[in-house]
Amino acid sequence: MSPRPQLDPNQEMPLYRQLYEQLRDFIRSGQLADGDRLPATRELAGQLGLNRTTVAAAYELLETEGLIKGHVGRGSFVHAPADSGRPWDRLLAATESPAGSDTAAAISFATSRPSADLFPLAEFRHAARDVVEDPSLAAILQLGSPFGFEPLRTHLLHQARQSSVARDTDDLLITNGCQQAIDLLVRVLVNPGDLVFVEDPVYPGLRAVFQQAGARLTGIPLTARGLDLDELERQIRRERPKLLVLTPNFQNPTGLTLDSQTRREIIRLANQHAVVLVENDVYSALRYEGAPIEPLKSLDPDVIQLGSFSKIAFPGLRVGWMLAPRPVIARCAQAKQWSDLHTDHLSQAILWRFAEDGHLENHRRRVIAAGAERLTAALDACARFLPRDARYTKPQGGMNLWVRLPDPLDAEDLLRRAVREGVSYLPGRYFAVSRPEPSSLRLSFAGLPPDQIRSGIRLLGELFAAELDRERVAARPPATALV
Amino acid sequence: MSPRPQLDPNQEMPLYRQLYEQLRDFIRSGQLADGDRLPATRELAGQLGLNRTTVAAAYELLETEGLIKGHVGRGSFVHAPADSGRPWDRLLAATESPAGSDTAAAISFATSRPSADLFPLAEFRHAARDVVEDPSLAAILQLGSPFGFEPLRTHLLHQARQSSVARDTDDLLITNGCQQAIDLLVRVLVNPGDLVFVEDPVYPGLRAVFQQAGARLTGIPLTARGLDLDELERQIRRERPKLLVLTPNFQNPTGLTLDSQTRREIIRLANQHAVVLVENDVYSALRYEGAPIEPLKSLDPDVIQLGSFSKIAFPGLRVGWMLAPRPVIARCAQAKQWSDLHTDHLSQAILWRFAEDGHLENHRRRVIAAGAERLTAALDACARFLPRDARYTKPQGGMNLWVRLPDPLDAEDLLRRAVREGVSYLPGRYFAVSRPEPSSLRLSFAGLPPDQIRSGIRLLGELFAAELDRERVAARPPATALV
Repeated sequence: MSPRPQLDPNQEMPLYRQLYEQLRDFIRSGQLADGDRLPATRELAGQLGLNRTTVAAAYELLETEGLIKGHVGRGSFVHAPADSGRPWDRLLAATESPAGSDTAAAISFATSRPSADLFPLAEFRHAARDVVEDPSLAAILQLGSPFGFEPLRTHLLHQARQSSVARDTDDLLITNGCQQAIDLLVRVLVNPGDLVFVEDPVYPGLRAVFQQAGARLTGIPLTARGLDLDELERQIRRERPKLLVLTPNFQNPTGLTLDSQTRREIIRLANQHAVVLVENDVYSALRYEGAPIEPLKSLDPDVIQLGSFSKIAFPGLRVGWMLAPRPVIARCAQAKQWSDLHTDHLSQAILWRFAEDGHLENHRRRVIAAGAERLTAALDACARFLPRDARYTKPQGGMNLWVRLPDPLDAEDLLRRAVREGVSYLPGRYFAVSRPEPSSLRLSFAGLPPDQIRSGIRLLGELFAAELDRERVAARPPATALV
Repeated sequence: MSPRPQLDPNQEMPLYRQLYEQLRDFIRSGQLADGDRLPATRELAGQLGLNRTTVAAAYELLETEGLIKGHVGRGSFVHAPADSGRPWDRLLAATESPAGSDTAAAISFATSRPSADLFPLAEFRHAARDVVEDPSLAAILQLGSPFGFEPLRTHLLHQARQSSVARDTDDLLITNGCQQAIDLLVRVLVNPGDLVFVEDPVYPGLRAVFQQAGARLTGIPLTARGLDLDELERQIRRERPKLLVLTPNFQNPTGLTLDSQTRREIIRLANQHAVVLVENDVYSALRYEGAPIEPLKSLDPDVIQLGSFSKIAFPGLRVGWMLAPRPVIARCAQAKQWSDLHTDHLSQAILWRFAEDGHLENHRRRVIAAGAERLTAALDACARFLPRDARYTKPQGGMNLWVRLPDPLDAEDLLRRAVREGVSYLPGRYFAVSRPEPSSLRLSFAGLPPDQIRSGIRLLGELFAAELDRERVAARPPATALV
């Protein structure tokens, strides 16, 4: 079988289920096509070092779902027939495919998400029980407002007012995580052909939303101080964008932060040229060292600020928010209503209880303590194990850092070999707007314990060093002149 | 104060909170503007027949949220200043405003949603406890797949296969209710200028999603058999639409159902002219009498079918799904990823447990028993209390029926008076695509107990009769000839 499943005995999910899910994804993505023969259970068990019953259990699930069919004496075959002839490909609008879903490597630096082993399950269970046992449960289960579950909305707005981030002119809308907030903004602010400025490199989910809406994107390069201000000013003067979207703290993918002076300059430029400024603020609560820097929103009331519980607490509960001038929130709430009526009530109610009871702040402190350790482990390992000429950012928080490998290494070429060694990351190409950096890669360190971070980066370092040696040998002139 | 709050002492929500929410909504919607003076607490308490402390508690909440400001000796004033001068109105794309949110009448026929008093809270609590206490909780709280929570997805797909609705060529995607399924379809199938056929009248949330995407909409009139087939054929031949969206059972707003023969004719026409057929199947489980009719999806594998838990179980949990040929689901899952990554995990996990444990089916039986009673109450009351020349549909299930008043009554003009009498409904105009029916209105009966249905329709009947009398008097020729 050509796509090879990668199983991890240390995961909570049983091996047969891991195998089932990976085979299913191979079928879904077309890596295994209709009619392909699966290896016999004994054969695949041998290849993967598994018990034969594990493979049989996975095949059984696939068969129940109708994805494979067994023929006595001949083996099992993928059953994913094409549709009945309707030309779906012609009918369906092209969309960019999602950036590299997590590969099944044992140590994955590929996903920017919090560590499940830090989840405060006891406190979550407590908050969930409180909500579920409360007499107000029926109201939570009933249809609600597009603005969000009122107690949570009020709580967040109150908090933003107390920290002087929200003004009297602001309102707040609950969204399904920050991703939907961006999507709603695009719906109400962006027309096809509009010009939008984003950081380059940038989180592909942000790039994709704008591209799907037919916006033109210009990427502004990042520097150690955050954004290349000269380039921003030049581009703003020349191109007059409608929107500028920034992640001022611990940007994804680079981990870079805008310093205070740069923030003020950006505000000045945006106001001078009437550019709408969107502040993606999802990482600011994850500062592990150094002093916090004022958010853009507190420097200028017209900034639209996005927040989320996903980076601190539980990303499986899709709850984020948008803080913005009233007219923006009113229009986004309309768009939200026609998009999905409102955000799921139960998770909003539980997160509200979780925050009100102080569990969120306690959890944040624990996450920061763990994050600081992980960041230190990542930076130490980069210094120790990466090739001497590699460059990398040194964030003070967040989840990601950005590595630039020395020439002629290509991060995408090397990924397949890294995965074979049991380590994955995302190559820089995934994040490019207009400046592909084939030598760059993102390491998401926050989801891994320090020892895995160290051994993962050591493995990568060895792989990169070996490749550099190989390239140097290949590039060396032949020992004797050829005549 | 000109917009008058409508409070209901029978609601679970305390009166001060009802008052707070309504005043907040008046401010948000601009019915109360910046600088408007609120009545003194004593004065408003007198007007509404409330205790003065109730009004004071509501004002205090509004003041905490910064929506009103008190001035000693002068009273309280609305504080909703305009923004800082950024021309948001020019920047924000126009969107249609959401159709009449529920007015606060004591008896509201305005919202098509299940009755909260039927919610099986004990069973829900049981399922929720099981999920929250389970060792797999951490996986539920972690980021997931755009396709949905796998056990629920598999459960629904399996069920659809068992009832021969799903084929081997199909896949299933979990969405935030049916509204998001439509939104995703629009994203992947509809380009600006594309022609889409819908029923006329139709649910405004459906109309709005297509209009926002720049689709051209044609409404196909409904008849007692469901759809006007002759008109459909004529329009399809002439206009070659890309999509035809239908709700074959207990359509919203009319309650009409497509008979079996009409369904087959529609399939034939759609295939002949390569029209993509979308079957909104959210009401089919709510059949109170008569035999079920085959879904369009089981007549033709290329049909895209939408389902939801919202009409049977708990609309506050936003979980629906789409069953469609694999290429459609794959593309919609991509669109879903960039829209909000995935649907909230916790509600999916609880609904899966709720369904697996048999609670969903038990609850559905109870909802059907209650719905049958409510439908009977509504039809009896219509026969008894509506003016003799009024016409109304006689659905066998669902949540809505459609009333056409005799000339010259105008359902929208009469709504304000109905609300003053304590009854609300939605006028036909809200549902019109190309044929406004000023004399029509929708009665959503499923959310109200039978006695309220009876007294509400009796009140409406009296109001309509009085208005008819008044109109007839006014239209009578003068007693003596004027010279």
